[in-house]
Amino acid sequence: MPRFPSEKLKNEVVLRDPVHEYIHIEDKVIFDILKAKEFQRMRRIKQLGPISYVFPGATHTRFEHNSGVYELTRRICNIFARKYPSMAPNDGLWDDNNRLLVECAGLLHDIGHGPYSHTFEHLFGTNHEKIGQKIITDPNTEINHALKQVSSNFPDQVASVIAKTYPNAQVVKMISSQADADRMDYLQRDAYFTGVSYGQFDLSRILRVIRPYSDGICFTNNGMHAVEDYIVSRYQMYQQVYFHRVGRSMEVLLHHLLQRAKDVYQKGNLQVTPSLAKFLEGNWTLADYLNLDDGVMETNFSMWTKANDPILSDLSKRYLYRKPLASVKINKETKNLLPKLKTLINQAGFDPEYYTDTNSAFDEPYDAYKPTGKNANSQIEIMQDDGTLIELSELSPLVRALNGTFQGDERFFFPKIMLSQNDEPQIFDPLYQQFQKYVRNGELRYLRRPNKKKKDN
Amino acid sequence: MPRFPSEKLKNEVVLRDPVHEYIHIEDKVIFDILKAKEFQRMRRIKQLGPISYVFPGATHTRFEHNSGVYELTRRICNIFARKYPSMAPNDGLWDDNNRLLVECAGLLHDIGHGPYSHTFEHLFGTNHEKIGQKIITDPNTEINHALKQVSSNFPDQVASVIAKTYPNAQVVKMISSQADADRMDYLQRDAYFTGVSYGQFDLSRILRVIRPYSDGICFTNNGMHAVEDYIVSRYQMYQQVYFHRVGRSMEVLLHHLLQRAKDVYQKGNLQVTPSLAKFLEGNWTLADYLNLDDGVMETNFSMWTKANDPILSDLSKRYLYRKPLASVKINKETKNLLPKLKTLINQAGFDPEYYTDTNSAFDEPYDAYKPTGKNANSQIEIMQDDGTLIELSELSPLVRALNGTFQGDERFFFPKIMLSQNDEPQIFDPLYQQFQKYVRNGELRYLRRPNKKKKDN
Amino acid sequence: MPRFPSEKLKNEVVLRDPVHEYIHIEDKVIFDILKAKEFQRMRRIKQLGPISYVFPGATHTRFEHNSGVYELTRRICNIFARKYPSMAPNDGLWDDNNRLLVECAGLLHDIGHGPYSHTFEHLFGTNHEKIGQKIITDPNTEINHALKQVSSNFPDQVASVIAKTYPNAQVVKMISSQADADRMDYLQRDAYFTGVSYGQFDLSRILRVIRPYSDGICFTNNGMHAVEDYIVSRYQMYQQVYFHRVGRSMEVLLHHLLQRAKDVYQKGNLQVTPSLAKFLEGNWTLADYLNLDDGVMETNFSMWTKANDPILSDLSKRYLYRKPLASVKINKETKNLLPKLKTLINQAGFDPEYYTDTNSAFDEPYDAYKPTGKNANSQIEIMQDDGTLIELSELSPLVRALNGTFQGDERFFFPKIMLSQNDEPQIFDPLYQQFQKYVRNGELRYLRRPNKKKKDN
Amino acid sequence: MPRFPSEKLKNEVVLRDPVHEYIHIEDKVIFDILKAKEFQRMRRIKQLGPISYVFPGATHTRFEHNSGVYELTRRICNIFARKYPSMAPNDGLWDDNNRLLVECAGLLHDIGHGPYSHTFEHLFGTNHEKIGQKIITDPNTEINHALKQVSSNFPDQVASVIAKTYPNAQVVKMISSQADADRMDYLQRDAYFTGVSYGQFDLSRILRVIRPYSDGICFTNNGMHAVEDYIVSRYQMYQQVYFHRVGRSMEVLLHHLLQRAKDVYQKGNLQVTPSLAKFLEGNWTLADYLNLDDGVMETNFSMWTKANDPILSDLSKRYLYRKPLASVKINKETKNLLPKLKTLINQAGFDPEYYTDTNSAFDEPYDAYKPTGKNANSQIEIMQDDGTLIELSELSPLVRALNGTFQGDERFFFPKIMLSQNDEPQIFDPLYQQFQKYVRNGELRYLRRPNKKKKDN
Repeated sequence: MPRFPSEKLKNEVVLRDPVHEYIHIEDKVIFDILKAKEFQRMRRIKQLGPISYVFPGATHTRFEHNSGVYELTRRICNIFARKYPSMAPNDGLWDDNNRLLVECAGLLHDIGHGPYSHTFEHLFGTNHEKIGQKIITDPNTEINHALKQVSSNFPDQVASVIAKTYPNAQVVKMISSQADADRMDYLQRDAYFTGVSYGQFDLSRILRVIRPYSDGICFTNNGMHAVEDYIVSRYQMYQQVYFHRVGRSMEVLLHHLLQRAKDVYQKGNLQVTPSLAKFLEGNWTLADYLNLDDGVMETNFSMWTKANDPILSDLSKRYLYRKPLASVKINKETKNLLPKLKTLINQAGFDPEYYTDTNSAFDEPYDAYKPTGKNANSQIEIMQDDGTLIELSELSPLVRALNGTFQGDERFFFPKIMLSQNDEPQIFDPLYQQFQKYVRNGELRYLRRPNKKKKDN
Repeated sequence: MPRFPSEKLKNEVVLRDPVHEYIHIEDKVIFDILKAKEFQRMRRIKQLGPISYVFPGATHTRFEHNSGVYELTRRICNIFARKYPSMAPNDGLWDDNNRLLVECAGLLHDIGHGPYSHTFEHLFGTNHEKIGQKIITDPNTEINHALKQVSSNFPDQVASVIAKTYPNAQVVKMISSQADADRMDYLQRDAYFTGVSYGQFDLSRILRVIRPYSDGICFTNNGMHAVEDYIVSRYQMYQQVYFHRVGRSMEVLLHHLLQRAKDVYQKGNLQVTPSLAKFLEGNWTLADYLNLDDGVMETNFSMWTKANDPILSDLSKRYLYRKPLASVKINKETKNLLPKLKTLINQAGFDPEYYTDTNSAFDEPYDAYKPTGKNANSQIEIMQDDGTLIELSELSPLVRALNGTFQGDERFFFPKIMLSQNDEPQIFDPLYQQFQKYVRNGELRYLRRPNKKKKDN
Repeated sequence: MPRFPSEKLKNEVVLRDPVHEYIHIEDKVIFDILKAKEFQRMRRIKQLGPISYVFPGATHTRFEHNSGVYELTRRICNIFARKYPSMAPNDGLWDDNNRLLVECAGLLHDIGHGPYSHTFEHLFGTNHEKIGQKIITDPNTEINHALKQVSSNFPDQVASVIAKTYPNAQVVKMISSQADADRMDYLQRDAYFTGVSYGQFDLSRILRVIRPYSDGICFTNNGMHAVEDYIVSRYQMYQQVYFHRVGRSMEVLLHHLLQRAKDVYQKGNLQVTPSLAKFLEGNWTLADYLNLDDGVMETNFSMWTKANDPILSDLSKRYLYRKPLASVKINKETKNLLPKLKTLINQAGFDPEYYTDTNSAFDEPYDAYKPTGKNANSQIEIMQDDGTLIELSELSPLVRALNGTFQGDERFFFPKIMLSQNDEPQIFDPLYQQFQKYVRNGELRYLRRPNKKKKDN
Repeated sequence: MPRFPSEKLKNEVVLRDPVHEYIHIEDKVIFDILKAKEFQRMRRIKQLGPISYVFPGATHTRFEHNSGVYELTRRICNIFARKYPSMAPNDGLWDDNNRLLVECAGLLHDIGHGPYSHTFEHLFGTNHEKIGQKIITDPNTEINHALKQVSSNFPDQVASVIAKTYPNAQVVKMISSQADADRMDYLQRDAYFTGVSYGQFDLSRILRVIRPYSDGICFTNNGMHAVEDYIVSRYQMYQQVYFHRVGRSMEVLLHHLLQRAKDVYQKGNLQVTPSLAKFLEGNWTLADYLNLDDGVMETNFSMWTKANDPILSDLSKRYLYRKPLASVKINKETKNLLPKLKTLINQAGFDPEYYTDTNSAFDEPYDAYKPTGKNANSQIEIMQDDGTLIELSELSPLVRALNGTFQGDERFFFPKIMLSQNDEPQIFDPLYQQFQKYVRNGELRYLRRPNKKKKDN
């Protein structure tokens, strides 16, 4: 008897998807999850948040990404079941009884996300992972109801796969590892919708060379370069899309805007939609969380453009009408210049608390050995003809170059007018001239004092 | 002196666009329009409205489409200026002094659209064309301010191009004709984001063969098949995407939902965001209109899921959680069955006024001769080697087949439960059995009476 | 016991293919056919012959097309076996015992082709269909040897599928019908390599809606537009690629060149490679045929550029160095002008027998009813929900427009110098002036007599 | 007066190209070069030679690549002329007077190549660079004739650009540097036709960020990642396509086959086509060279399959029917095993001189500093906002990882039967068993001595 029996749909249902062509749904439980209101809500939450302000095509939502991850797990299961079916317990091959479990986990791995998750969590103490677990296991959700069709403890098992506590490493790593269905989908999808080509690694080839082994998932020898290329694509997408300075600038604005709203609300007198009000009050339930989406947030921002508080009103307009802050690269040393610069910015009429910020964006494109932490022990292994495994960075000079490094930069954000130039009136104002002396080639720099310079030479 | 002098940007600005690769901006006025709040607002209005419920990738917005139309007009101007520059007045070639005018018109041709324009206009008496003219010409808008940089009457001239009253036919038809930059962009863009391939005609070739002539724009002889293919793509997109029965079903829901909200609001006691309230009151200004977007509408729907009115609450849920009505094809004859069916639907507990509807979706893929009306005289001409023009349908058997026809269907929409089958309890209820007898192969049909049948044979 | 038992390869072999991503080979017999020298020879025969002179990318060979047809039959079998497996004899569903048979037939359906088949057959009385049958059934070929691994009569059965005499209509029509794997592959492939987009119909969707039925293969109702689009793509590829006037011109040259070589050879004294010699002598064997390929032909043409016969030498150069003849459209009426024009061409120094020709290129994009002939009874059927079939042209206005029509043109070919213009010396020669009067807008036309003209005005 | 005056064509001519969409030809001299017989001959020489035996789609020819390089130089000139036009001598910007020169150089940079250049040169002492110079400057060629239309010394100037002696570094480096039009075209083109995605870097973005400077060509700061990605793509194409072990195996076969033919020919009695005969005799002219192409070579191989010499006959069949040698990786140490292995191979009946070989394939993906040699001083520079240049590997961790390294492997090639396994009779033969002990995971290895093994355990 299968571990997780599945009722099949009378007719397969498909969703048209520009990235994977079709999402195929054969199981009633998958279809019912898709129809659940907690899942439909993801149609209203953009996958990349404010990055659509930089790449206008990037309006795709978490709904599509989650469907895509499901579809990739489904395809990987198909491949494993055909090429590597387990014949005996612990033979290191794929037990297709886990299929429905991993498909549901793929579909639901991000279900806890709300609008602008990162910023929101920081300000309101929400946690998308815990909320996701709750959505799956709370008997009041439609998703929980759908999952229980399979068995009463199926929701818990799905949750355990997402939490990485499920005992079968192949199941867990198909969803969470350095080369999992989640990353494969979002890199391809984000590349498609932004219109940059960097994320387009060779998914067909990756799916040809992926295979299970006793401790999880690895890749066969002839696929080394495809996996290497995937790591490089990931690096490129981080550097070029996810860490784009303007996207981060919009996120800084968003953070300050919500922070200011919180402050103003507590002083009373701010028009807010009911569900967001609960968060500003610090008194929210799961139902309130599920009522939030990008549109609700923007509706509030739009109302706030008319707020009495001039800073809140201004920040709301800057966000909605896309007036990003400018930024420059900083480092440990040049950071010491920031107090000086903030003084100038203050003199120019901007409260530095709301109009400046620093923001670090660093990613570790690959780590060969992670003994602890969230991605512990998920290094990518390449299987040789005789079954031995070699860790990826031993074979690839590119991955070796990225292995264990942190790629990205730290930036200082401030009002764009500080950099205004010849066609604007500020050009003759010593305040702005002073500020601009500290900026060269997009970086902050120390002004060498004339006498110091002399000594140096 | 150029008719419309343009201040150039110091550095060209580009937007990454998945369809055209880059949108290139060289003129300050174009850049300023893009930055105007009335234009930025289009980022929050989906190009295809509820069609994203059917094709999940179709979350692209009017912002991208308008930018894309601008980019196409820019490219066509480049081609015309290089290959067909006017040397003397009335030589039928391209006067590049019109470039900035037509680019602005391309960028702004849809600026009057709000959320769900079609449905909204029907219910609230708005008119996106008039509103668009107002946004361009009203001295209080940022767009008007940007346009006036060129000259004081430039806004009026841009408006006249969009209104098709500008005297130069080449300028008008680049934006509005049966083969204009508007259609070329939306077909390609909608195809890209829905993931269907039908809309992907050969744009590069179209741009190779497009040319000006004294009465507008035509295509050279060697491009006949490319233009033919474009007409066929258009037909396919209408049949497969724009007229998709589920998309229309969501639009029917939307209409009923807003209608019900209007009714409930007038009886008092409905929670509404301030800008939508003005419309329900029938007392709105341009500023109110500009405050609307998809997110505002959905925020209201979300609040209404908790409305006291059970029909409004139910319709709001159906829309937000994607529970479309079912539908069948009808025709002039089978329409007579509708009263009977509505009675059954009423008996099943649904108010037919809010839970049923008929909807016609017909498109004329091409019309060789339109002496009057909106697209008067915009037939597509193919220029022969000796300069004579031949109308497209004379050359193409495919276009001839579509010429002057109306393709599409009329459907009757009703609650899906009326069609519920074997796995659902209604299967044994004679009410549903009765209803279902009228449906075969997705169409409504007459039941032959047994005695009538006898006679027939 | 399976009807055609297949030995599987220890490891699946794949070929990288730009059109289908991968060609998958799991059966030893398929792999052995691919390795057979008669099959490898197809690497040296271009799929589109002289069309690469017009579309330089079109250098792809019959090897890739045949592999691609195999891959499509394999995928269709996979779909049929998963979705429509036969449960009982004559239930109209798919019996997967036929899989190996249809895959081999797909792989070998074009195996009898040689270089420039059409032209070659006409001149040397070869017949690629008969030769194909022989290659499959002759015990001396490696292909026959490979097929016999399955069973002693397997070669005959494969041959019968290709000859359309095999009793199972599903098997036959998967290879030969108006919507078969052969056409689906070549349209996509030729579109990819020529770089035109017209042939790119939605193959994924076609494969979603294809299904078996008792009399062959049909498509489900929801796929009507995909099939319609495929028929239109086919029409476009014929009009734009296969019937391109320059491609046909090169084929006319080729024909005259080989004809002249035959004539010269019979008079003795022509350097020829051994295998082609046999054909010029009219005394060839299968082995000679299998020694021919594009390179052998071009090697001969290259040697003939130095032939003593000036016409042969000139035609060889024209072909190898791509100097196509010019052409104009003709019709039944204007054909009467040809003797007059040939006289002028003769006066210009060209033997009309070798330097002029007429060529008809007409295709019937679709035929709803063919009671007899090669494609008898292969109309495309669309299956309704209740299982009834409707013929495609009843549903599609586009297919109805093309149904039973013959699209294309007839052209007259002649030396390009006859059309030479202002920058060339012939411009003042009355001979050329006279010729050119008969040509307007790419067509031949009658000259109106001056006195007639007078009356008209 | 322009340095190189150009006569324009009356109408622009285009070639359809799957990689760049269209190749645009506006100048008569470009058109005349394309029509020259020395250029047309490149239609018959595959760009990647025997690699089409591995990637069947890779049948594209040097004709298309050369046209593509021309098109890229044309587009770069367009960009430079629009964005960076020189205003004064030595201002480091682009002087568009050089356009025709660099376009011709791009079109002709590879004109000296013959079939299988590398192998051929090695055996017959030809040199494609010298031959290319001769084709351009020899007054008997049609190409020289075409170039002289511009000026009598134009052929020499074009030749000097290709030879890198022309004084303008921008002109030279557009054709020959680590990021030139040549590489940009072949990476994209080879990726398209092989069907691998690795070579598909973001050409549109590269063209956005490329710019001239006083010492050549560099890239603006915002394009660093696009250039980085291009270097990685180049690395991937070398590792995955150009260095594919089976492609190299076919090249080894080709080399041995031609070597054997030379030996046999010198002993007399070998059927050869006239032009190849001249090379076997060591007595060839430019005209003979221009008569060679892939088809001529294969025609000879085909005749040689029936040669009396059994080795020549066997090697010809192996090449034509794609029977590659097997191979294993070797290194400096394991190379010492080769004599032992060759003895076994000899015992198995194969002459090691013709049936074994070693082959090194190493590429330097990028070199930051090359003071001398062919690519001297062509490091890639990234221009900062203030005009300073930073060498690429200082900015990119990936390029730094590849910088100055040699990526690839050395392999030993031998008859595949030496590795034959369970399903073949050799399995029980100690000769083969002995051989196979030296191979593990695709590499050669030393056998541990039995007594050593004992100790280990």
